[in-house]
Amino acid sequence: MKLLLLNPNTSSSVTERMATAARAAANPGTDIVPVTATVGPPYIATRAEAVLGAMAVMEALGSVKDDYDAVIVGAFGDPGLGGAREILSVPVVGLSEAAMLTSCMLGRRFAIVTFSATLGPWYRECVAYHGLEARLAAVRFAGGTFADIGSVQDEMRETIVDLCRRTIDEDEADVVILAGAPLAGLAATIAAEVPVPIVDGVAAAVHQAQTLVALRPRKPIAGSFQRPAPKPLIGVSVGVRHLYGDDTAP
Amino acid sequence: MKLLLLNPNTSSSVTERMATAARAAANPGTDIVPVTATVGPPYIATRAEAVLGAMAVMEALGSVKDDYDAVIVGAFGDPGLGGAREILSVPVVGLSEAAMLTSCMLGRRFAIVTFSATLGPWYRECVAYHGLEARLAAVRFAGGTFADIGSVQDEMRETIVDLCRRTIDEDEADVVILAGAPLAGLAATIAAEVPVPIVDGVAAAVHQAQTLVALRPRKPIAGSFQRPAPKPLIGVSVGVRHLYGDDTAP
Amino acid sequence: MKLLLLNPNTSSSVTERMATAARAAANPGTDIVPVTATVGPPYIATRAEAVLGAMAVMEALGSVKDDYDAVIVGAFGDPGLGGAREILSVPVVGLSEAAMLTSCMLGRRFAIVTFSATLGPWYRECVAYHGLEARLAAVRFAGGTFADIGSVQDEMRETIVDLCRRTIDEDEADVVILAGAPLAGLAATIAAEVPVPIVDGVAAAVHQAQTLVALRPRKPIAGSFQRPAPKPLIGVSVGVRHLYGDDTAP
Amino acid sequence: MKLLLLNPNTSSSVTERMATAARAAANPGTDIVPVTATVGPPYIATRAEAVLGAMAVMEALGSVKDDYDAVIVGAFGDPGLGGAREILSVPVVGLSEAAMLTSCMLGRRFAIVTFSATLGPWYRECVAYHGLEARLAAVRFAGGTFADIGSVQDEMRETIVDLCRRTIDEDEADVVILAGAPLAGLAATIAAEVPVPIVDGVAAAVHQAQTLVALRPRKPIAGSFQRPAPKPLIGVSVGVRHLYGDDTAP
Amino acid sequence: MKLLLLNPNTSSSVTERMATAARAAANPGTDIVPVTATVGPPYIATRAEAVLGAMAVMEALGSVKDDYDAVIVGAFGDPGLGGAREILSVPVVGLSEAAMLTSCMLGRRFAIVTFSATLGPWYRECVAYHGLEARLAAVRFAGGTFADIGSVQDEMRETIVDLCRRTIDEDEADVVILAGAPLAGLAATIAAEVPVPIVDGVAAAVHQAQTLVALRPRKPIAGSFQRPAPKPLIGVSVGVRHLYGDDTAP
Amino acid sequence: MKLLLLNPNTSSSVTERMATAARAAANPGTDIVPVTATVGPPYIATRAEAVLGAMAVMEALGSVKDDYDAVIVGAFGDPGLGGAREILSVPVVGLSEAAMLTSCMLGRRFAIVTFSATLGPWYRECVAYHGLEARLAAVRFAGGTFADIGSVQDEMRETIVDLCRRTIDEDEADVVILAGAPLAGLAATIAAEVPVPIVDGVAAAVHQAQTLVALRPRKPIAGSFQRPAPKPLIGVSVGVRHLYGDDTAP
Repeated sequence: MKLLLLNPNTSSSVTERMATAARAAANPGTDIVPVTATVGPPYIATRAEAVLGAMAVMEALGSVKDDYDAVIVGAFGDPGLGGAREILSVPVVGLSEAAMLTSCMLGRRFAIVTFSATLGPWYRECVAYHGLEARLAAVRFAGGTFADIGSVQDEMRETIVDLCRRTIDEDEADVVILAGAPLAGLAATIAAEVPVPIVDGVAAAVHQAQTLVALRPRKPIAGSFQRPAPKPLIGVSVGVRHLYGDDTAP
Repeated sequence: MKLLLLNPNTSSSVTERMATAARAAANPGTDIVPVTATVGPPYIATRAEAVLGAMAVMEALGSVKDDYDAVIVGAFGDPGLGGAREILSVPVVGLSEAAMLTSCMLGRRFAIVTFSATLGPWYRECVAYHGLEARLAAVRFAGGTFADIGSVQDEMRETIVDLCRRTIDEDEADVVILAGAPLAGLAATIAAEVPVPIVDGVAAAVHQAQTLVALRPRKPIAGSFQRPAPKPLIGVSVGVRHLYGDDTAP
Repeated sequence: MKLLLLNPNTSSSVTERMATAARAAANPGTDIVPVTATVGPPYIATRAEAVLGAMAVMEALGSVKDDYDAVIVGAFGDPGLGGAREILSVPVVGLSEAAMLTSCMLGRRFAIVTFSATLGPWYRECVAYHGLEARLAAVRFAGGTFADIGSVQDEMRETIVDLCRRTIDEDEADVVILAGAPLAGLAATIAAEVPVPIVDGVAAAVHQAQTLVALRPRKPIAGSFQRPAPKPLIGVSVGVRHLYGDDTAP
Repeated sequence: MKLLLLNPNTSSSVTERMATAARAAANPGTDIVPVTATVGPPYIATRAEAVLGAMAVMEALGSVKDDYDAVIVGAFGDPGLGGAREILSVPVVGLSEAAMLTSCMLGRRFAIVTFSATLGPWYRECVAYHGLEARLAAVRFAGGTFADIGSVQDEMRETIVDLCRRTIDEDEADVVILAGAPLAGLAATIAAEVPVPIVDGVAAAVHQAQTLVALRPRKPIAGSFQRPAPKPLIGVSVGVRHLYGDDTAP
Repeated sequence: MKLLLLNPNTSSSVTERMATAARAAANPGTDIVPVTATVGPPYIATRAEAVLGAMAVMEALGSVKDDYDAVIVGAFGDPGLGGAREILSVPVVGLSEAAMLTSCMLGRRFAIVTFSATLGPWYRECVAYHGLEARLAAVRFAGGTFADIGSVQDEMRETIVDLCRRTIDEDEADVVILAGAPLAGLAATIAAEVPVPIVDGVAAAVHQAQTLVALRPRKPIAGSFQRPAPKPLIGVSVGVRHLYGDDTAP
Repeated sequence: MKLLLLNPNTSSSVTERMATAARAAANPGTDIVPVTATVGPPYIATRAEAVLGAMAVMEALGSVKDDYDAVIVGAFGDPGLGGAREILSVPVVGLSEAAMLTSCMLGRRFAIVTFSATLGPWYRECVAYHGLEARLAAVRFAGGTFADIGSVQDEMRETIVDLCRRTIDEDEADVVILAGAPLAGLAATIAAEVPVPIVDGVAAAVHQAQTLVALRPRKPIAGSFQRPAPKPLIGVSVGVRHLYGDDTAP
C-alpha cells in the first residue's frame, strides 16, 4: 500500500527525518511517499502558523498526482485533519491523533513531551479537540532554545530524557508521547533510558494508517464526513479547486 | 472607532447583509469597514471549507491597508480566529464566540438555530472549541434546501421561527442564537414571535468588539497569544508575509 | 443609558472605588448610579456571606426608585445574579461573569488573581457555576492580611503584580482577571508591569451591560428566566414584595 | 439525637408533611424538630425565590434557641446549604444532596421527577452544583398545574408514577428521586408501581444527617468550610448577627 | 440488622481491624459479620489484583450461609461492587464509594490519602468510575515502604498526618479520606492533629449501609441493576452458581 | 506474529466466529490463536458476569502455554483489560477499546449498536472508563430477544441495519461500531446498506494488536502499569499464581 506522508511544514529536513522514521516503522509492502508543504513556515508552532499549515495540506493534496491509499498529516497539532477527512475518499490520520490514541492502549494517562514552550498551549488545544483530556497527564516542554529545527532532537536529547522521567514521577504518566515532527525517530534511541513506553508520532501514524487501509472503511455518504457538495472556489489553485470538486474549475 | 468586518465567505451579498446589520447595531462613532474574502467558497459550511476560510482571513488581513481598531471574523464557526488573535495587535472577535458569550449573560442555556444540516456538527465542534458545552441546550437545523444563500433568511423565516419555539419547549433553551452569517439581521424581525431573547451574531460581535476596544487590553508579550516569532514563509502572498512579520518579505 | 451599579457589600468605600472605575470605563452618555447594600457585611468573602449578599441585591432592587436600563451586580462571585435575572425585565450582569466572558475573547485560559485566600474556593465555585472550568488556568491568591478593605489594592500592589506574573509563567494563563470589587481600577495602574491583558471586573461589567442594553433582548416569557409567578411573601420588606410581584403587598 | 428539620418554604403544611415523613424514617431516639421559614414564599420554585429561601435558612438558624445535632435544609435545590455548612459547627445536609448521594449507592444513573416545569432548570443547576451530572439520567416534570401545594402529591399521583416509568424506559434511569418537599412521603406509597428504587429526599436526608452526627466529624478550622471570621453585619436580625459571630451585635 | 462486612483481601488481620472499626461505628442493634476473602492476595493494590478481589467478593457471597441485610465491600477501590449490586437483592455499598459520598456532605473537595504509591492511580480510576472527579482535590500517597500491612497505620502515622496537612494547604481539600482497609480506625486517633474532618471508609460504609437498609429500597426489576437472567456457569464454585441463579447448578 | 484471541465468554461458537473474523482481518504472517474461557457464562452481558469474565481472562492467561506477541480481550466491555495490561509484558488490547479508538480516526462521533438492551448501560460505563464520552453519539440496542447467541447476527440483521441508519440520522453519528463479540464479522456484510463506516471490534482489535506489536513498546518498570510486586495468592489456580508471579506457587 502507498501512504502519503504529508509534511505541513515547509522544511524538507523535517520531511526527511519523518520519512526515515516512517519507513523504519512501516510493514513490508508499505510504500511511504513523502511530500513537503509548499505553503507556510519551516516549522508550525502556533495557531497562526497552523492556519497556513492547514492550507498547505489542502494545496499538497490538490497537487499530488500519485494515487495513494491513505494520508498522514505529518505535524503534531494535526492541521487541516478534519477538512482532509471530509474531502478525501481515502483514510487520513494525524500525527498527534495517532500518537494519543495509540498511547491509550499502553496505559491510562499519557504525557506529551516537546521541545518548545510555544507548542504547549497549541498541543493542549489539540488534546481538547480530540476529546482526550481525561487521558492527558501533562504537557511538558523544554524551556531553552535550539540552533536548528533539523537537529533539535540531537541538541535536546538530555533535556527530553529528563522531561520524560519527570512527567512519570510527578504527573503519573503511564506513557510518553514525543511530540513534534522534528522529534521523529528519537523515541527508539532513548527508550532504554525512560522507564515507560514512549510513542513516536510518525511510527504510530504509519501503523494507524495501515490499520485504516486494511479495514477498508467506506467513504461516508451521510453524516458530517461525507464529501462537501461542490461549490465554486476563488483565489485558490486549480489543484485545490479539483480537490474540492469545484466543477467550474478548468 | 473603526471595526474591520471581515467576511471569510466570498459571497458579497452576505457581506452586505452583515454590514447592514452591523451598522444598525453599532454605537454612534463606530465605523464598519466590510471586507469580503477573496479566497474560498461563497459560503463556508464544512470543516474543509473552513480551512479555506481561515486562510481567507489571513489573506484579507494581509491585504487591508486601512488602520482599524478591532476585527470581527464574520462567519459562524470562527475560522482562523485563534491565529488572527495571535498575529494581530488589535482585538479580534468571532461571530459565534460573541454570540455564545453574550447569550451566557441572558440565560443559562443557549440553543443554536441554523438553516442547513451540514452546519450542525461543525457548529457543535465550535461550541466545544470554546469550552461552552455546559451552556449549550441544542443545535437545531432546518432540514430542507434553499434557493439562494443571499435570501435564505427570507425563504426560511417560518421554519426558523418554528425551530426557535421547539428548542425552547423541548431543549430547555433560555436564549436562541441565530447562527450563520446569512441570517444576520433576522433576529430583530422575528423577535416578537419567539418568547425568549434571540441573539444575532453580527450585532453581538459588533458590541463585543466595541467592548474590547474600549477596555484597551495590552497585546500580550508572554503566553500563548503573544505574536509568533518571525519565520520565512513560502507560497503565500506578500501581504501575508508582512502580516506574519516575515522579515525576508519584499 | 442608566446603569445601576449595585454593590452587594455594605462598604461604601468599595462602592466609591467601583463607581470611579465604572465611570472611567463607561461610554459617554452612560450614567452610573451606585447603590450600596444595606444588608450584610462590609465585604463578602465566603458562601455564608454570599447568602446575605444575594439578599442585599434583592433588597436594593426593591428599594431603588430610579429607572435604570441594566443592573451590575458589583461583587465577584455574582451573589443573587440568577435570581435578579429572573425577576427583572432589564438585563443584569455580574462582575465575575463579565470578567470571565470578556477574558474568553482575549485568550484561551484566564487566571483569577485575588487578595485573600478565603476567596479562592468560592471563586472556583463561581467559575464552575458559569460552566467555564475549561477556560480557567488557576485561581491565585495572596497569603497575607491587609489593614483596610478600602485600600487593599494599594497595600498589596506588589504582591498582586507578582501573582500575575507567576500565573502566566506557571499556569499558562493568557489573561489575568483581578478579582474582587476592592481591586476595581487596579488593572489600569499595573498593566505595564504584567505581560498579558488584565481584565478589570468593573470595566468589563460596564461594557457588557452597555452591550446588553444596546442589543435590546426581550424579557423571556417562556423558559427558566421568565418572571416567576407572583406568590405572597412574608418576612421581607415591602420593596422586595413589590419586586417579586407579590400582589398582596401594600 | 436532635435534628433540626428546617423548611425554607413558608408553607407550614409542607413542613408538616416533611415532619411526618422524617419521623417515619428516623431511627428510634432521633428527635425531629421542624421549623418553618418566616421569610419568603410558600414554596420555592425559582432562582429568585431561592435567594429568599437561603436567607430564610439563616434567619431560622439565627432564631432557633434549641440545641440540635444536625440540620436538614428541607427544600430541594438546597438553598443556603454551603453557607450554613460554613457557619455552623454541626453537620448540615440538603434534601437534594442527600437524595442524590443516596441514589448513587442504589444504581448508576438517577432521574429526578418533580411536579412543576419551573423546577426543572433550577434542579438541573443543583445537580451541576454538586458535580453529579455524570450520574443524572434526566429531570422529568409534570406539565400541568395543581390546586394546592399541600396536596399536590395526591393530585398528581398518577402523573408521577407515569413519569417514573417513562424515565426508566426512555432515559435508562436506575433509581428515581421524587423531588420537592411537597412530595415528601409519596415514595413509599407508589413504590410497588415503579420497578426501580425510589428515593424520598426527606427520608434520605434524615438518614444522612444521622450518619454525619454518628461519624462526629470535627468542625474544620482550616480550608473553605471553617467558620468565617466575624464581621459587623447590618440590616439583618440580631439572631443572624449572632449566628455569624458578629461581635458588635447586642 | 446484620451487615456482612466482606473483606476482598485475604488478610485476616485487616479483616479484624475493619471489624473493630465497624463495630465501634455501628448503631446499637447492628450486627457486623466479618468475612475474609478466600481468593486472591493479602492486600489488593493494583488493577490486576482487583480482578481477583472482585472474584473473591462473588465467591464469598456464594459461600455465606447467613442471612444479612446489606453488604459492605470492604476494600478501597470497590472491587466487584457493581456486579454485587446487580446480583443481590439487599443493598451493597463500597468502602470508597461510602467515603466519597459522605465526604461530599462535609465540604466541597475531598482528598484521598493513602499509604502506598501503587494505590494512587487505581484510586483515581475509582473516583472517575463514580463520576466524582469534580469533587476530588487530590490523591496523596506516602512514598516509602512498610513492614506489615496489619500495622501499616501505626508505622506511617506521622507521614499520614503530614500528608493530610499538606493536602489541605496545597490542594484546597475541605475533607480528607483515609483510604485503604488497613487504615481502618486511624481517622479517630489523628483527628485532633488534622484541621478538617477526616472520613474513615469503614465507619462511613457502616452508616451508609444502615441508611440503605433503613430506606428499604426495592430490588429493581427493570433497568440495569435488575438481577441478570440465569445462565449456565462453568468453572466456578457451586456457591457462585447459586448466587448467579444458575438453575443448572446442583 | 502470534496473537492470542482470548474469548472471556465460555461459548465456543462465539470464539469460532471471532477467530474467523480475526483471520479474515489479520495481516499475512499473523497467527490467530483462539482460546475460549473456562470460567463464567456463555455470554457476558452484565456487570456481574463481567466479574467472572475478568477472572476468566486471568485463568486463561495463566493456563496458556504458547508464547504469543499480544493479547486481544475478545469481549465488548473489555473485562479484565487493565489488570491484564499490568500483569503481562506483551501488549493487550480490548475489543471495545480498539473499536472506539479506531472509530475516532474515521469521524467525530461514533455510535455503538448492539443486540441486547441489557448491554447498553454496561457499554456506556465502558465508554466512560476509557474517557471517550465526548466522542460518543449514542448507544442503540435492539429491543427483542433472540434464539441463539451463536446466530444472533443472522437473526437480527435487519434490525441492526435499521439501528445503524437511525443513529446516523437521529444521533449525528459519523461512524457505527457493531458491539458484542457475537456480531463479529457482520460489519462486512452490511456495509453497503449503511451510509457511514462500520467498525468491527474484532478486526479493529487485530489491527491494533499488530500495531502495538510492531511498535515494540517497552514493558513499563515505573508508573501504574508496571508489573505488580509478587504476593502470595490463595484460592486460585497454579496457573494464575504463576501469572501473577507468586513465588510461593509450586
